[in-house]
Amino acid sequence: MSQSIRRGDLEALDRADPLRAFRDRFRLPEGVIYLDGNSLGAMPRATPERMREVVEVEWGHDLIGSWNTRGWVDLQQRIGAKIGRLIGARAGETIVADSTSINLFKALAASLELRSDRRIIVSEPANFPTDLYVAEGLMRHLGRGHTLRLAEPDDIEDAITDDVAVVMLTHVNYRTGRMYDMRRITERAHARGAIMLWDLAHSAGAMPIDLAGADVDLAVGCGYKYFNGGPGAPAFLFVAQRHQPHITPVLSGWFGHASPFAFEQSYRPAEGIDRLTVGAPPILSLTALEVGVDLMLEAPLDLVRAKSVRQGEIFDALMGQEVGRDAFTLVSPSAPAMRGSQLCYAHPQAWPIKQALIDRGVIGDFRAPDILRLGFTPLYLGYAEIWDAVAILKAIVVERAWDTPEYHARSLVT
Amino acid sequence: MSQSIRRGDLEALDRADPLRAFRDRFRLPEGVIYLDGNSLGAMPRATPERMREVVEVEWGHDLIGSWNTRGWVDLQQRIGAKIGRLIGARAGETIVADSTSINLFKALAASLELRSDRRIIVSEPANFPTDLYVAEGLMRHLGRGHTLRLAEPDDIEDAITDDVAVVMLTHVNYRTGRMYDMRRITERAHARGAIMLWDLAHSAGAMPIDLAGADVDLAVGCGYKYFNGGPGAPAFLFVAQRHQPHITPVLSGWFGHASPFAFEQSYRPAEGIDRLTVGAPPILSLTALEVGVDLMLEAPLDLVRAKSVRQGEIFDALMGQEVGRDAFTLVSPSAPAMRGSQLCYAHPQAWPIKQALIDRGVIGDFRAPDILRLGFTPLYLGYAEIWDAVAILKAIVVERAWDTPEYHARSLVT
Repeated sequence: MSQSIRRGDLEALDRADPLRAFRDRFRLPEGVIYLDGNSLGAMPRATPERMREVVEVEWGHDLIGSWNTRGWVDLQQRIGAKIGRLIGARAGETIVADSTSINLFKALAASLELRSDRRIIVSEPANFPTDLYVAEGLMRHLGRGHTLRLAEPDDIEDAITDDVAVVMLTHVNYRTGRMYDMRRITERAHARGAIMLWDLAHSAGAMPIDLAGADVDLAVGCGYKYFNGGPGAPAFLFVAQRHQPHITPVLSGWFGHASPFAFEQSYRPAEGIDRLTVGAPPILSLTALEVGVDLMLEAPLDLVRAKSVRQGEIFDALMGQEVGRDAFTLVSPSAPAMRGSQLCYAHPQAWPIKQALIDRGVIGDFRAPDILRLGFTPLYLGYAEIWDAVAILKAIVVERAWDTPEYHARSLVT
Repeated sequence: MSQSIRRGDLEALDRADPLRAFRDRFRLPEGVIYLDGNSLGAMPRATPERMREVVEVEWGHDLIGSWNTRGWVDLQQRIGAKIGRLIGARAGETIVADSTSINLFKALAASLELRSDRRIIVSEPANFPTDLYVAEGLMRHLGRGHTLRLAEPDDIEDAITDDVAVVMLTHVNYRTGRMYDMRRITERAHARGAIMLWDLAHSAGAMPIDLAGADVDLAVGCGYKYFNGGPGAPAFLFVAQRHQPHITPVLSGWFGHASPFAFEQSYRPAEGIDRLTVGAPPILSLTALEVGVDLMLEAPLDLVRAKSVRQGEIFDALMGQEVGRDAFTLVSPSAPAMRGSQLCYAHPQAWPIKQALIDRGVIGDFRAPDILRLGFTPLYLGYAEIWDAVAILKAIVVERAWDTPEYHARSLVT
């Protein structure tokens, strides 16, 4: 892209975009350019009517009977199977349940059970904090001398030695967007006898993932980002079939029992991955998640990835062309193949700039201490919007529009 | 009630019922007598519009901003505080989070932490299975020689000896409806130096509960029964203030961090009970729960309890008067003060009878192996409906209408 980019070029890309029709499957507010679908995905147009149905008909009219007649009792399996197709899992390897944090706990506890003779968990210091917190809590609770070995991304492979029980990494970093080579790291873990546990929060639904092909052991991920499942949507958990019979769940609730409605006195784990469900699941939130996942199943993930890569390239090129490289430092890898569906720029005033952007209709994200994070969600983000977003950012920078007390003020969630 | 009861007597009770107006606050299907609100509460009339708003406006329009502007970030605390008022908790002692099973895990792990020098968990063999399963999973995971001491209800007090770490009981038994004397058992536990953990799944919202007055240590409970929060609604967790600083959560997720959005590398528990939240909560299901809890806050729980007791007495008297005592054995305590808001009858054909009842519009519940369970939810159940339910049951028994292959067939959830 040595020639300068014009808005007309991007309009042409929109016209030729094979994913263009998906935009109309979402409802987005007028005048908003949404670059935060990697934090909370947009609402599918089909969601309100489906929610009305589950609330008014399935609950309000059919009442308790819906556990059977509407399949609520299997909803965690049903949606899990659909997500499994989007992450390259085999049948029976994926469930939806609980939150990502709680699924991480289950997956990490299972990993340590599968490698009970080892005591080291490998991760990276800049992993999403909850991953590290969950490991801390589990290790302290077990009290068996487990340690967390944190290595920088470039040093991860060296950190995977013969005494490592589990390698727990987030495929795409939440802040920088840096992406690991899943197959390579998994191979390395296996070569050293370790379990490989991937957190797919920032990659599932954004690109093709082949858990079976990469021979991954366990994985978790998020329903409210690229799956457009709604705020705090339940999360998913993947366990390779070969490990399932060897896992005795720590969180051994009645939904994971072999016969939940026999009300037996002792726990007998269900067959397969079902044993990793715990309590009665939040049906309303699950229903919204299913709408998002169903929509995603219509979209070829290779096209999603290709468009996301192109959108990232164009955005960054426009940053150079329109805004300049002085103040904004690209924190994401410069090679598109090395990053997920987001770009992150460090800027000392990232917080007030993000606030000013929101007031002009560009919704991005901030990650402490100084990161402006911009996500690309190809199903509902057009190319021309990228031009407009950069133009607005440029205006804010030129006018120093971010420099007001109001924009400097912090709120709780960023 | 030595005189025979006529339907007109019950119509008169309905006319004089101070809770009568609440019936119109719920939407129930025509022709249904719902005696299963203790399994899944009915839908408040306000829920669909509130759900439309959270889906279409808060998520669909305001997108990520709603975490701040709509208070999603504090929703677990906000609803928890409301539930706290319904169970006699002090401010800052109750949160809504996750499922009852997972909250039990947190509460039991905390109890064992608070009594780290003791190894015995006391419960009863007929406790709701998930309570026992969760204890099993936790004990196995800890691997420190904890044991589960199961005693029959009448023997519980004797089972609480000086070496007991925690007494974990369900206030009202899910099957029989038998109710413990909360204050007395809690006193006994404390006299022996044990932690008292109550599962309020079948009592919260059905009667006044005074956790502070009874000096209870920890409690959990359910959002989808008497709080009418919707299928699989998130659960609640109570921890007495005095214990909160001494609990280091096992499930240490980012929402329970002192500063979740600072993205620190190490876990620092939040102040107070907030530390027992874990991951991003399911906002849509939480929103439905809040509608149910708000409605319950309008209803004086002493009136709810008084009506529920009366409804139970009338139902059982009508069983004697209309159906006869031969085949149906009352499994619930005969003294109303000793039971919760339900009646349970053993009958060898409980399953097909329950099926036949449903086909005639009376929705009750079955609990293995032979229990017909009938719940009384005074906010939306009228007295005359009790007459009608018994009349229908009588007809089914007289006609042997339950004795068809169709009614004998089992389904997955009962």
